[in-house]
Amino acid sequence: MKYNELTVGMSSEIEKVFDLKSVQKFANLVDDHNPIHLDEEYASKSIFKKRIVHGLLVSGLISAVIGTKLPGEGSIYLGQSLSFIKPVYLQDKIKAKVEVIKLRDDKKLVTLKTICVNQDNEEVINGEAVVKLFQ
Amino acid sequence: MKYNELTVGMSSEIEKVFDLKSVQKFANLVDDHNPIHLDEEYASKSIFKKRIVHGLLVSGLISAVIGTKLPGEGSIYLGQSLSFIKPVYLQDKIKAKVEVIKLRDDKKLVTLKTICVNQDNEEVINGEAVVKLFQ
Repeated sequence: MKYNELTVGMSSEIEKVFDLKSVQKFANLVDDHNPIHLDEEYASKSIFKKRIVHGLLVSGLISAVIGTKLPGEGSIYLGQSLSFIKPVYLQDKIKAKVEVIKLRDDKKLVTLKTICVNQDNEEVINGEAVVKLFQ
Repeated sequence: MKYNELTVGMSSEIEKVFDLKSVQKFANLVDDHNPIHLDEEYASKSIFKKRIVHGLLVSGLISAVIGTKLPGEGSIYLGQSLSFIKPVYLQDKIKAKVEVIKLRDDKKLVTLKTICVNQDNEEVINGEAVVKLFQ
């Protein structure tokens, strides 16, 4: 999308289920073999009681919406803040939602509210992204 | 590590090269098929000139340090801010460095400065993480 096609309030989303295979693959990609993600027995003794999905893997859905939908191709990702509010468990269906909340015309900067909710509509991640467009 | 073993100034790091295979795998994991990451011809016409690695894939190295080294197992990841300062290209060797900058004893909260540098020691990502410990 071009900068001048954007308006405050526009939104877009992507949904995805994260399974054990996804978590194992991400663990290998970034060498994060923390047993809270991979070892069911270890996780059962933690405050989470079950294995959880890496927060930055789930957050990848946010950049997927930004990079492919809103604003989409051509977006230059400048920053992202993330609060991990609730754990994401294996097989949770996560929806990443992105909404334009601020436009700064002189620099073509777009601020987006970015949240992820689970299948029970509980917010699991929230934050903001800043994106620059050249067109 | 236990909370009372931590001191301001402690640091740890992990290093990793991201290749095309890593980028393709992450693209599939989060459905982010933005051509800036995957299509060399498309990328050659962009301001980056070459394909770049997803910012949130690179950032995964930060959570790897936090979850496996400092503070390590038992860390509850509460938040992360990320500024994407420079692009990360395929085959770049990225070092994620994490340093304790603040300790809040009453809640066992740890604030860490989190940066990623490339093989030329240029900062590509910076930000802060907040982690809670129970022990």
